[in-house]
Amino acid sequence: MVSSHFMSLLLKIGVPEDRLLVLEGKGGIVEDEFEGIRYVRFRDSAKGFRRGTVVFENGEAVLGFPHIKRVVQLENGVKRVFKSRPFYVEEKVDGYNVRVVKVEDRVLALTRGGFVCPFTTERIEDFVNFEFFKDYPNLVLAGEMAGPESPYIVEGPPYVKEDIEFFLFDIQEKGTGKSLPVEERYKLAEEYGIPQVERFGLFDRSRLDELYDLIERLGREKREGIVMKSPDMRKIAKYVTPYANINDIKIGSHIFFDLPHGYFMGRIERLAFYLAEKHVKGEEFDEYAKALGKALLRSFVESIHEVANGGEVEETFTVRVKNISTAHRMVTHFERLGVNIHIEDIEDLKNGYWRITFKRVYPDATREIKELWNGLAFVD
Amino acid sequence: MVSSHFMSLLLKIGVPEDRLLVLEGKGGIVEDEFEGIRYVRFRDSAKGFRRGTVVFENGEAVLGFPHIKRVVQLENGVKRVFKSRPFYVEEKVDGYNVRVVKVEDRVLALTRGGFVCPFTTERIEDFVNFEFFKDYPNLVLAGEMAGPESPYIVEGPPYVKEDIEFFLFDIQEKGTGKSLPVEERYKLAEEYGIPQVERFGLFDRSRLDELYDLIERLGREKREGIVMKSPDMRKIAKYVTPYANINDIKIGSHIFFDLPHGYFMGRIERLAFYLAEKHVKGEEFDEYAKALGKALLRSFVESIHEVANGGEVEETFTVRVKNISTAHRMVTHFERLGVNIHIEDIEDLKNGYWRITFKRVYPDATREIKELWNGLAFVD
Repeated sequence: MVSSHFMSLLLKIGVPEDRLLVLEGKGGIVEDEFEGIRYVRFRDSAKGFRRGTVVFENGEAVLGFPHIKRVVQLENGVKRVFKSRPFYVEEKVDGYNVRVVKVEDRVLALTRGGFVCPFTTERIEDFVNFEFFKDYPNLVLAGEMAGPESPYIVEGPPYVKEDIEFFLFDIQEKGTGKSLPVEERYKLAEEYGIPQVERFGLFDRSRLDELYDLIERLGREKREGIVMKSPDMRKIAKYVTPYANINDIKIGSHIFFDLPHGYFMGRIERLAFYLAEKHVKGEEFDEYAKALGKALLRSFVESIHEVANGGEVEETFTVRVKNISTAHRMVTHFERLGVNIHIEDIEDLKNGYWRITFKRVYPDATREIKELWNGLAFVD
Repeated sequence: MVSSHFMSLLLKIGVPEDRLLVLEGKGGIVEDEFEGIRYVRFRDSAKGFRRGTVVFENGEAVLGFPHIKRVVQLENGVKRVFKSRPFYVEEKVDGYNVRVVKVEDRVLALTRGGFVCPFTTERIEDFVNFEFFKDYPNLVLAGEMAGPESPYIVEGPPYVKEDIEFFLFDIQEKGTGKSLPVEERYKLAEEYGIPQVERFGLFDRSRLDELYDLIERLGREKREGIVMKSPDMRKIAKYVTPYANINDIKIGSHIFFDLPHGYFMGRIERLAFYLAEKHVKGEEFDEYAKALGKALLRSFVESIHEVANGGEVEETFTVRVKNISTAHRMVTHFERLGVNIHIEDIEDLKNGYWRITFKRVYPDATREIKELWNGLAFVD
């Protein structure tokens, strides 16, 4: 349900009336609250207002973060997307997307789906200099939260050794979602000391060999990949390393039945295109094949044994918070996402932080494995 | 469209009137013709009449072949399906399912989907003694056509060295689809010299070790698996070898984009359950992982290179026919199935047979690879 106050607000900022009524009717927009701050989040998109868009009571809108297009053949992708023009290359960090925004006097961190994330909102001051918002209240900092202690992602990049960190990769305007040009973003980030994703500089299609070398290096360093951006941010494309494709499969196979088939098939496909583009052969090819096979099978077989022995498919993760109440708010947040989670342990780190250990149970995956293990005969 | 003659026939043999009208309206039943023989085939099921059911003008119905249930955990599957009762074990042959039936004075071979198959119908007299139908006009011979020269399947079992063969695995009554008890089938097949799938004898859950040994041996011999059947044919379950799961993936990865994700994921899942059940570890585990990875990647990468070099994703196969017209009928048959196929070569084997070489092109898979190879940037 969306209140009449928000309905007229949404009309005023330009959501078409017919679309608005449809959205409201089927739950495509939802009114929500975080510590007294009321907002509407878009679960579906409406002309100009992407999924994940958030509108606050003062009429300010933070547009949903756009999906970055992917290329699976690097050389032809670069040529097709950027033609002969130059593009910046930045690291694609493996974490979760947040939009950091100041609304009235509060700095909030929004998830991709348009929730105010209690955890990220509490922690964001550790990473972002709020002076920025005093000078630029109309800008949104978009970045990746990544590290081994994350509420949404099992692993982080290898260079975040503990806790979690923020890596800026985009600055957008409130209301329009328009991105600042790359160089302006770099300058502002440096000026305010906002941590950024690693920047590899300006490339063009004549420097493809260096781009290939970069991908090889990132793969060796167990990093996820790159995002390529025209200086004006109008053309953006991502490409991931073969390492990341295999590693994602390895992580996912633990909860095999909880993920859509496309999760695995898309990554196998990207790996195949990498092997084809780089003409990988012989022993090197076989090494990739073996790594892929192990990634698919090892954790999956472990999950089967776990369930066969009476256990459940589950994942454990930790986060560091300043207030235990934040951990409880996260449990509530997960419950609303339909995720089955509970707090396992609370540890005082004696430095102003608590380490909270959560356990997430996957009841559907558990049930499916249990049935199959128990000898279910089924038509497929 | 189904003629009024057939509509009243279908009513008479018991298709419920309301269901019949719905089926006819949405194309769930289709009237068809083969060399002057008219029939209706069921593309959907209707109470008691399974998908693939065929009804002829004389009112005789051949019921669609039922889907055999699968178990992925052999020990528990056997215990759950058969309890303490004995069951026959037969080879699961890797080919295509046909139902052979005499209607008026013609012996016809029906595909699983309910088409009269021109190829199989021409060739079935090479394998089945038609005397059987003189004595048992009311029975349907269900079996697998398998071999390296097959119109529907890329590979055959290793022991069929050339051409194709028929392997009986069920005898059912016209009209009811009721199966003869296993022993009666064995006796009739021997009496009339009808070739059967290999029979491994009567087992029960106390002989599980032998069943495991059998699966190991079949896998080593590159065979597909087993079907277990209670003597009265009321309980049936299948189990496939790890070899077959990996080999199917190997064959399928050539046409990766033309197959549903479930084709690959189901087989990976079955392999994982095998590894879990048999506690496969260490080097043996790694060998399976490597074989799986290679099966997924090798032919897929080859297809990408083929398309990158201007070619198409395609498969070539041969069949042996007595009349060239049968080959042309097969092309028409494939066209109706929406399959893009043409005759590449016709060779006179000088023994009363022609060897026909077909080429099947996969335009969708080709187009998808071409787009991705050409650097398409896409949202996934």
